[in-house]
Amino acid sequence: MYSFCASKSFHRLRELAEEVIDLSDAHVMSPKRVESHVAEALGIKLIYATERVNEVVLHSLFDLAQEARAIEKMEAMQAGEIVNFIKGCKSEERAALHTAMRDFFEQRNSALKAMRASELAYRELEKLKRFLAELDTNALYTDMVQIGIGGSLLGPKAMYEGLKAFSKKERHLHFLSNVDPDEGAALFKTLNLSRTLFVVVSKSGTTLETKTNEEAVRAQLLNAGLDPKNHLIAVTGEKSPMDDPSRYLSSFYIWDFIGGRFSVTSMVGGVALAFALGMDRFLEFLRGASAMDKIALRPSLKENLPLLSALLTLWNRNFLGYPTCAVIPYSAALHRLPAHLQQLEMESHGKSIDKEGNGVHFDTGPIFWGEPGTDGQHSFFQMIHQGTTVIPVHFIGFFKPQYREDILFQGTTCQEKLISNLFAQAIALATGQSSDNPNQLFLGNRPSRILFAEELNPYTLGALLSYFEHHAAFEGFIWNINSFDQEGVQLGKALANRLLVQFAQLREGKEPSHKEFPLGQAFLRHLKP
Amino acid sequence: MYSFCASKSFHRLRELAEEVIDLSDAHVMSPKRVESHVAEALGIKLIYATERVNEVVLHSLFDLAQEARAIEKMEAMQAGEIVNFIKGCKSEERAALHTAMRDFFEQRNSALKAMRASELAYRELEKLKRFLAELDTNALYTDMVQIGIGGSLLGPKAMYEGLKAFSKKERHLHFLSNVDPDEGAALFKTLNLSRTLFVVVSKSGTTLETKTNEEAVRAQLLNAGLDPKNHLIAVTGEKSPMDDPSRYLSSFYIWDFIGGRFSVTSMVGGVALAFALGMDRFLEFLRGASAMDKIALRPSLKENLPLLSALLTLWNRNFLGYPTCAVIPYSAALHRLPAHLQQLEMESHGKSIDKEGNGVHFDTGPIFWGEPGTDGQHSFFQMIHQGTTVIPVHFIGFFKPQYREDILFQGTTCQEKLISNLFAQAIALATGQSSDNPNQLFLGNRPSRILFAEELNPYTLGALLSYFEHHAAFEGFIWNINSFDQEGVQLGKALANRLLVQFAQLREGKEPSHKEFPLGQAFLRHLKP
Repeated sequence: MYSFCASKSFHRLRELAEEVIDLSDAHVMSPKRVESHVAEALGIKLIYATERVNEVVLHSLFDLAQEARAIEKMEAMQAGEIVNFIKGCKSEERAALHTAMRDFFEQRNSALKAMRASELAYRELEKLKRFLAELDTNALYTDMVQIGIGGSLLGPKAMYEGLKAFSKKERHLHFLSNVDPDEGAALFKTLNLSRTLFVVVSKSGTTLETKTNEEAVRAQLLNAGLDPKNHLIAVTGEKSPMDDPSRYLSSFYIWDFIGGRFSVTSMVGGVALAFALGMDRFLEFLRGASAMDKIALRPSLKENLPLLSALLTLWNRNFLGYPTCAVIPYSAALHRLPAHLQQLEMESHGKSIDKEGNGVHFDTGPIFWGEPGTDGQHSFFQMIHQGTTVIPVHFIGFFKPQYREDILFQGTTCQEKLISNLFAQAIALATGQSSDNPNQLFLGNRPSRILFAEELNPYTLGALLSYFEHHAAFEGFIWNINSFDQEGVQLGKALANRLLVQFAQLREGKEPSHKEFPLGQAFLRHLKP
Repeated sequence: MYSFCASKSFHRLRELAEEVIDLSDAHVMSPKRVESHVAEALGIKLIYATERVNEVVLHSLFDLAQEARAIEKMEAMQAGEIVNFIKGCKSEERAALHTAMRDFFEQRNSALKAMRASELAYRELEKLKRFLAELDTNALYTDMVQIGIGGSLLGPKAMYEGLKAFSKKERHLHFLSNVDPDEGAALFKTLNLSRTLFVVVSKSGTTLETKTNEEAVRAQLLNAGLDPKNHLIAVTGEKSPMDDPSRYLSSFYIWDFIGGRFSVTSMVGGVALAFALGMDRFLEFLRGASAMDKIALRPSLKENLPLLSALLTLWNRNFLGYPTCAVIPYSAALHRLPAHLQQLEMESHGKSIDKEGNGVHFDTGPIFWGEPGTDGQHSFFQMIHQGTTVIPVHFIGFFKPQYREDILFQGTTCQEKLISNLFAQAIALATGQSSDNPNQLFLGNRPSRILFAEELNPYTLGALLSYFEHHAAFEGFIWNINSFDQEGVQLGKALANRLLVQFAQLREGKEPSHKEFPLGQAFLRHLKP
């Protein structure tokens, strides 16, 4: 049976890490290296000349992927096999068929389960098409608020921000996630309720934050003399407590084979994105995602960008020992992408057991974080250049701006300034700089990679979304951990519920019993000034 | 001479770390511990029962602070001594007098340099008061855009978002930082230029992004038939290239003793915050910050929250070996606070040399990152609970919502749900949970601390801002590194300029010389599809 730590390649890579190349060595970072260390698919380049790898390491990483049968597992996932499981203990035992949510274009998957899921998804898409066509005719609604949290919000929000430049005139999206009453209060002040739709997204139909915010919205609508039924849309699982058409203007389904953080291309993201962008552009987005799904099945690292990238991430994490990974889009529109990737990566790989239920003896997922460049350059890049903890960087950049509006200033355009800064950072981190002044010494040898594409448009962003989804899936396949569950969020929820019982008792004038949850009680006593 | 690694306390703490308490031990997390492990000042509690410290560790940490003369250094900083220096090599040789920017209330600092700086600051404040009074009379302007990057933007933006609930009617702030042309293009579409003011903030008056965006704004205004002089305000250093009253409606000064990331309470934040909140509330904000400045001079850890917190951060970083720190505000309004703290901490402490110019043999600043709770619970908290890398958490919470609008749902209010979740997370991380199912096993013993206050208002946020500024300063004092410079951002800038020369040459139809910057050339070749 395959085990990450026990694999031949793991041991080989451990050895190779002892004598790893130093990017600050004058012989390493050559123009030839920059030109040759690039993989490409769908017009997207992955430039990895500034990663600490040579051909031997790359071969061994590919061997590791083969030992782990990574591409076969990807095929199994896309075919609808059960991949969300842990042997020998109670687990979710589900497929992860997010690729079926967009498998409507070329080279469709012919596996039975994938086809069925894709048919279900297409039915919802058709329903959405009709629903939006009707909205277009009536032109009643200009604004839509997505109510959801975590997987029901971060991805759709990141995609909307990324594509706002392509949204329809007079169509605006808003998002409401937190149970913090101030988030809703601030939002409600900006809305014209009579022209606003609310999409309530919860697969279980019971998410505390989402149901609470739905309740708040219903109260607001009633207060304004409006019928909530005309303003609320449900996206939920079949037969969930929210699957009740009498309470919603329209309802769309998701299924247990769609994990929250992988749900962007399902109706979880679909309703709001298609409302804002229009159906054609949403389909372009799906087409890009689906095209990258096929790329993730390719056997060559020069094409299979998600696999190559996952292997580089593992190299940095498990063999070079870097605890985090910064995602830095040189695109202001992608300012919320790091938050989506944070969930995708950290919820998938914040695990300590493998798929056999055994504790792991290696580091699983790194911490993902980031902000856009050039902003980051004026903030935390000091640490990336001169800190004591090495931070690998995943840069993202584009050749053209989304709005074709740019100015010439001091001889170059803004976009040229943006690209120059991106490339300059990668070079500076790799080569460093010697100096007699210890404060101006840059050790260099700090790894990064660059995703570079022509333009951030619906097709490209769909492809990037899928790239990151499969990057995460490949990591899990190779670590042999389950990337698709999230048991680690349960304990906090359970304890919060016990505290809520105590709040409710106080409200009813009862003194909460100390025996029930003494630690919780002790914290609550801090509420008194 | 003091050295962090060579100090007595350092060695003592190393020993203590070998036998550190385990928070998941049933005897450790008692109600008594929760009640007693709290420090308090200005109505803000710092609850540290869930940090991995006992009395012996706390005493040794305090000894460390004394060996490092941390409070004396804080006094010296607030008195205007030169603290921004590195001995034996060219360095900035400046004071760090951000505390003087708000020293207008009780217990004013009597040191000559501090008093002079405070007088200069007060003069600008008076100028601002008059300027805003005039705006109020004319009521011409409803919107203000702050153009700046890094220290000229992140702090003011975080504070504005945090206090938006208190802003004046019909007064809105926007921010423009990135050289990405799409950021400006998207913003311009939403503005009524004739009613908008632009504050251009750059101490040097030469920041590439800021000057480029100023140029774009001037072009927009001219295009709209408006005179830029009536819409632009400058915040800059005296005699900088931007110190030219003929080009701005009004100009405000900052000085070289105000570092970008410490500049929120100077005119860098002042112009926009006072415009949005009104002068009275801005003064309340300054009053809170100044009050915390005085707290940072107190000799007792039970009151000196910034010192206590800095020591806990050092304990986690240098003795327990945790590479990052997550900042999780249970307040949607503080959603940009982590980005400000990222700069404050990571630009201050992403350093590898001490104040004598010697390479350090210990880890300096951890990576700071975070998102609001409860959002984070549905995203990356999986990793905080069950990942292989321990992530200390700095929680922030409040008793009352800002808008007094809340609903009862299932027996409790939203704010009660928010607080219950906050406390539940701290408890769950500390105690963990045993289980026969390895996937439901929580090892616990994961440290966190909680800042808790009555309400997020101008005074409290001012105090919190100052708390984090001094948290950072104390870390640097104890590590004996210079927290106030940022040489590490220079190399990337220099290389970007070399690439820009090549872009400009291409634009002029010249073939860029390969000899000039062959690596840069190689990257530029990737621009072609």
